[in-house]
Amino acid sequence: METDVCVVGAGLAGLAAARAVVAAGRDAIVLEARDRVGGRTLNHVLADGSVVEVGGQWVGPTQTRLLALAKQLGVETFPTHDEGENVIEWRGGLKRYKGAIPRINPAILLDTLRVQKKLERLARSVPTESPWTAPNARELDGQTFHTWLKRTCRTSGAYTLFEMVCEGVWAAEPHDVSLLHILFYIHSAGSFDELVGTTGGAQERRFVGGSQRIALGMAEQLGERVLLSRPVRRIVHAAAGVTVEDVRARRVIVALPPALTPRIDFAPALPGFRDQLVQRMPQGTVWKCMAVYDEPFWRANGLSGQATSDAGPVRVAFDNSPPSGAPGVLLGFLEGDFARQAGRLGADERRAQIIDSFGRLFGDRARHPIEYVEKSWAEEEWTRGCYGCAMTTGAWTSFGEALRAPIGPIHWAGAEYATTWSGYMDGAVRSGEDAAAAVLATL
Amino acid sequence: METDVCVVGAGLAGLAAARAVVAAGRDAIVLEARDRVGGRTLNHVLADGSVVEVGGQWVGPTQTRLLALAKQLGVETFPTHDEGENVIEWRGGLKRYKGAIPRINPAILLDTLRVQKKLERLARSVPTESPWTAPNARELDGQTFHTWLKRTCRTSGAYTLFEMVCEGVWAAEPHDVSLLHILFYIHSAGSFDELVGTTGGAQERRFVGGSQRIALGMAEQLGERVLLSRPVRRIVHAAAGVTVEDVRARRVIVALPPALTPRIDFAPALPGFRDQLVQRMPQGTVWKCMAVYDEPFWRANGLSGQATSDAGPVRVAFDNSPPSGAPGVLLGFLEGDFARQAGRLGADERRAQIIDSFGRLFGDRARHPIEYVEKSWAEEEWTRGCYGCAMTTGAWTSFGEALRAPIGPIHWAGAEYATTWSGYMDGAVRSGEDAAAAVLATL
Repeated sequence: METDVCVVGAGLAGLAAARAVVAAGRDAIVLEARDRVGGRTLNHVLADGSVVEVGGQWVGPTQTRLLALAKQLGVETFPTHDEGENVIEWRGGLKRYKGAIPRINPAILLDTLRVQKKLERLARSVPTESPWTAPNARELDGQTFHTWLKRTCRTSGAYTLFEMVCEGVWAAEPHDVSLLHILFYIHSAGSFDELVGTTGGAQERRFVGGSQRIALGMAEQLGERVLLSRPVRRIVHAAAGVTVEDVRARRVIVALPPALTPRIDFAPALPGFRDQLVQRMPQGTVWKCMAVYDEPFWRANGLSGQATSDAGPVRVAFDNSPPSGAPGVLLGFLEGDFARQAGRLGADERRAQIIDSFGRLFGDRARHPIEYVEKSWAEEEWTRGCYGCAMTTGAWTSFGEALRAPIGPIHWAGAEYATTWSGYMDGAVRSGEDAAAAVLATL
Repeated sequence: METDVCVVGAGLAGLAAARAVVAAGRDAIVLEARDRVGGRTLNHVLADGSVVEVGGQWVGPTQTRLLALAKQLGVETFPTHDEGENVIEWRGGLKRYKGAIPRINPAILLDTLRVQKKLERLARSVPTESPWTAPNARELDGQTFHTWLKRTCRTSGAYTLFEMVCEGVWAAEPHDVSLLHILFYIHSAGSFDELVGTTGGAQERRFVGGSQRIALGMAEQLGERVLLSRPVRRIVHAAAGVTVEDVRARRVIVALPPALTPRIDFAPALPGFRDQLVQRMPQGTVWKCMAVYDEPFWRANGLSGQATSDAGPVRVAFDNSPPSGAPGVLLGFLEGDFARQAGRLGADERRAQIIDSFGRLFGDRARHPIEYVEKSWAEEEWTRGCYGCAMTTGAWTSFGEALRAPIGPIHWAGAEYATTWSGYMDGAVRSGEDAAAAVLATL
């Protein structure tokens, strides 16, 4: 087969790239390893036929490219259930509260606010196109988020809250991640509140029928250009073009999590500088778990279904019921070390721990779901971790320039390559469209 | 083909493993991607026919398994040239000194000694079999070596000296590496002085005819059991056995740098816990560069040929002349960021910078070599970085248990798996012999 642009990976980035190439009057072929499109988005049909997502699902108001794309494809949105009181499990007790600020010790809240302001001020100093050029970049990149939090938080409560945020946003521990990466990521999202917020933030709305519909819609438009169950193991490349398995093309866009790209046999081999960069871009660790009930019983109790816990293993929970409100679905995330530990338990023990979390947060009725769904993205051979990568210390400043630079005819796309909403579905779409524009400019 | 044990990789670990399997009366086949054996050891023949190594080369007095193996194979050792004065380029000047302690500001030397003692005391608290069980392991693993040095060094001079050590030993920057990994590694070598020392340390002796002779000797004994130019792309495994490309075996020992293992397509896919561990085990970055002269002219000037520099790009230099003393060979290492930057220069510019380093350290005559040799291990498709891996923060404590654990019929070997002399040729041999013993116990 011959084409102008071969795209490896039919996630949002790859499909958006192929779509942009085709819209510009060029031809594209997408090779996808799985027997489905969508990458880290994946719909799941519950017993009653309603749809939930076991992958990425939310969209926020500033994620404009994802929203525009969904609109074009006729995928509507609806608000995440955000009425009623939230719950926080904190130091052995359970507290209900309205709005964004949990009802815990005001000294901790003030400390948290102070640290957050400091974090946001620092984040604004990090250019999202080139984090390595930030003032004091080397120092920011030479320490973990943990080190910075330990030095900056005056209360252990504030530390715990940021640890929960770190798990919730990066699916990583503060120990794992470069501070510079945290700052880059906050800046790429706009602000801290936009990252963690429901209404007004990245968790504001959901997609009717499930987020995977966006990938499915793009794939439908691309038609026979999308080839499933076609893992790419080898890419032969030269200035004039590439051979990707049995596809010959002028350019290739590799639209995979960076950690997976070296699993392709490039001939000739890629430069060491690029290979060593992606050795330093590990994927996060998350289990997404849902318990299903005949109705969202917590709503009648005045609860929003949103919860956080300092005890785990479920650290963050949401009401994930379909727009109709039936069945009731509680969504819990296990992230970072909780996810790593959960992955080594038997399925029964893991489920028991997760249901126990729901029981503690939402009452005994939560202990009796009619259905249970879970998904670990570290187990997925073609993803190997979610939500995205958390750069290790030193990586941005020693290797960052290699991230987005094409290598001859090889270009890159994926949520990790985005400068706006890095790590999110919106970033994936942006990176795909940007890669397509860069490729088209060379054809 | 059928065998008892298939070994992937004919470096020191893989060959030592196969040799131990055969010695126990079982059969083994070694599959090697390259057209040569030796992995990270590699002889290079100079124009006059004498041999130097562009890979691992030294052996120290406590590296007893490597020494015993060399003896069995008839590979003799000779002392690293360690007579005369050493040189340090420091804060714009050049100082000559005898022994281990450079003639710089005594306050810096005292500070350095204090920090070293603290480091060694901490290192002794880290069990080499299970670093994650060290007292306070999580805290030690949640910070970079840089963070610890910044907090512990009272002088910037001491920091610079440890930065040079970090590059010299780990081919990484203090920013890159978990403090817990540094401590584990020191403990696995015995002590700090043993790591960095020439006489009495890991750089004490060299192998006559080049270190690769050890791998070549083992390969000769194994004969037709070693198959070259046979990259392993796929391993199908079940409890009963494995299929490694076209070799069927009861067990497989994967003897590669951990970062390379996910580049093999395992069927079924490996557990996420293991895959995510090796996403956090990046290889170091080093260029090994040698300039050749008709004689080791520095010796006549009373110099040992050993040098360090706070300016770089050559940070550490040695007299690497053959045992005969002719020709004269100066060996310089570019490590960590110096190596990363050097890899992006043109060959002429890189050579000019390196020769300029030699000129500053050893005088103008060093500016006129008759031959020049360089090797970057990040560029090597089948290694992707040297000397070994430097664990990122959080990796040992969140994932360490996955490192040495077999997965069904799959066992692991390589310098990174060793508990004694991790990262060294001696550790590679130990890990190979240990893996063989573990496999044999299951047959």
